[in-house]
Amino acid sequence: MDDLTKISAEVEKKTGVKTSPKAIEDIISAIKTSENFWQIVRFSQRPIPTVAETLKILKRLRYVDFKDDKIIPQEKLNQKYSNILPYSKELICPQCEGKGININSLGILEDFLEIHKYRPKPIQEYDQGNIDPASTVGRVALMKLRNDISGKKIIILGDDDLVGIALGLTMLPQDVLVLDIDKRLIDFTNKIAQEKKLPVRAEVFDLRKKLPDSLKGKFDVLVTDPPEAKKPFKIFIEKGIWSLKGPGSAGYIGMTLIDSSVSKWAELQKFVIDAGAVITDIIRDFNKYEIWEYHTKTLAWKLAPVKSQFDQPWYSSAIVRLELVKKPKVKNEILKEKDIYVDIESTTT
Amino acid sequence: MDDLTKISAEVEKKTGVKTSPKAIEDIISAIKTSENFWQIVRFSQRPIPTVAETLKILKRLRYVDFKDDKIIPQEKLNQKYSNILPYSKELICPQCEGKGININSLGILEDFLEIHKYRPKPIQEYDQGNIDPASTVGRVALMKLRNDISGKKIIILGDDDLVGIALGLTMLPQDVLVLDIDKRLIDFTNKIAQEKKLPVRAEVFDLRKKLPDSLKGKFDVLVTDPPEAKKPFKIFIEKGIWSLKGPGSAGYIGMTLIDSSVSKWAELQKFVIDAGAVITDIIRDFNKYEIWEYHTKTLAWKLAPVKSQFDQPWYSSAIVRLELVKKPKVKNEILKEKDIYVDIESTTT
Repeated sequence: MDDLTKISAEVEKKTGVKTSPKAIEDIISAIKTSENFWQIVRFSQRPIPTVAETLKILKRLRYVDFKDDKIIPQEKLNQKYSNILPYSKELICPQCEGKGININSLGILEDFLEIHKYRPKPIQEYDQGNIDPASTVGRVALMKLRNDISGKKIIILGDDDLVGIALGLTMLPQDVLVLDIDKRLIDFTNKIAQEKKLPVRAEVFDLRKKLPDSLKGKFDVLVTDPPEAKKPFKIFIEKGIWSLKGPGSAGYIGMTLIDSSVSKWAELQKFVIDAGAVITDIIRDFNKYEIWEYHTKTLAWKLAPVKSQFDQPWYSSAIVRLELVKKPKVKNEILKEKDIYVDIESTTT
Repeated sequence: MDDLTKISAEVEKKTGVKTSPKAIEDIISAIKTSENFWQIVRFSQRPIPTVAETLKILKRLRYVDFKDDKIIPQEKLNQKYSNILPYSKELICPQCEGKGININSLGILEDFLEIHKYRPKPIQEYDQGNIDPASTVGRVALMKLRNDISGKKIIILGDDDLVGIALGLTMLPQDVLVLDIDKRLIDFTNKIAQEKKLPVRAEVFDLRKKLPDSLKGKFDVLVTDPPEAKKPFKIFIEKGIWSLKGPGSAGYIGMTLIDSSVSKWAELQKFVIDAGAVITDIIRDFNKYEIWEYHTKTLAWKLAPVKSQFDQPWYSSAIVRLELVKKPKVKNEILKEKDIYVDIESTTT
């Protein structure tokens, strides 16, 4: 058994989160790229408990040292793992930052940037955190590229990212319905929609509840960033799919590898397919999050073995597009208080 | 029931290929983008039988006309389906063509282009067709970005695209093994590998057979473009996974939506997850194929309701990255002659 396999086994045992030698390798690659803990998470794209535990073990084995708020790779690391290269940032397209999308040609970027300046700030109470304006506009551009906006009825379950407003600014949808628990976001969305005469309406709604029966089978497109603990994810996705019309209806889902291991992703993907959908796109690192103020109050912060600066963006998620291939046979279920956000892998909320 | 739903139902009945109103919509969008049948297939990304049958029905309903080798949208189409926009090509990043990857910074492009000039041409006997050099280099760049090359043992099952040579040119892998039935490709790969001292070896092998037992559990990374009929796909993928070491091992799979419906994709994705893997990336339209000479001898050509020029690239596939999350428990099976390439959705081979 080589060292990476041993380290991987120990990390898995200590954290309870499934991992692999490859994950340890990706973390070592990230260590060679940045001394900042959050950037190491960013580049390795592995769950925070896994990254934190790996760093502790690598320190014990004298592959790295911790100095103030930094992770310092030692000569021993470079010698032993000379095959593991730093993260190849230079391979990401500099123009689209890896999205594959030309956001400028959508024609809404300037307007959206102006509106975004005045948006309500994310708060921990609702597990909020918003992607940067370029990511919101990028998501809408991808939706347009896939013919999922023009003439469509679109439902957004939770809208920290103001996707509803961005969709509205294209003036193309038939109807956009935004549901969110946060009255500040709903009022902001409705105010902008009225001022600019956008085809968007927003309602305060606690998404743990069942959706109103009137929404069943009504929408062409779903947008949501579901919680990533297994049970809430399943209930959220099923509820979203329940509101869709049928085969050909699409879903745009944000999913992270920072709050989910690849093992958990495999289970979540199985839920999606079992619910009657196919996955047509997974573009990694598509949604780039802005820094959020409550970061030092999260489990992620507690787990961090050194308290590195977090003044640079580090958190991101993949955009995952689904398309229904069957008439949905899913439930519209209540999500119980005790089930939400509870998961050893989800630490940033 | 609206018209798209009716058309979709008729297309499904006539072709036997599952479809949806959204697919018909995507085809209408493509009709508004190009008068060329192959480009309509390209932009709609729907199976050829579906596109061909939809066009025939739209002609009967006087939404389009056929003139010589062209599809001409009629005023009635624009009036009835004014909501359906032409394909938004302008939203694809012009620098990376939607790959999200900066292929120039990999440092092998020029060498590879030079080698590519002398490659054996694709032949129908082996269902060949090769992606353009930028796509091969792009695939290798993506593999590097995901830390799947340096120090790795890589197996390539079928290598029309010369991925083996491109991987070798990075000088980073520990070992690259190329298996292909075509002696011309194997000889070409070995010749280049010797001349340039690349860490690549190639062997003539009929991939319908079982892999040699000595390859079991030996590789970190798999590259293949599997046949897309269900049974051959499953046997191919399982055989590939059988040759991988275990959790953290990766696979790069080309998958099309031109020879597969989204319904079939859903089933293929379930095979992948059931085999113990997760899907970490799906980048659509990543692999762009060069024109192949035997195109007029395929079922696709027969199905085409007008015989449009095919002098512009039109066929593409998605790159799909897998990562094993479990110790593989899959078979290394024989693929029987009668099972291969037989599928109503796969028409280009």
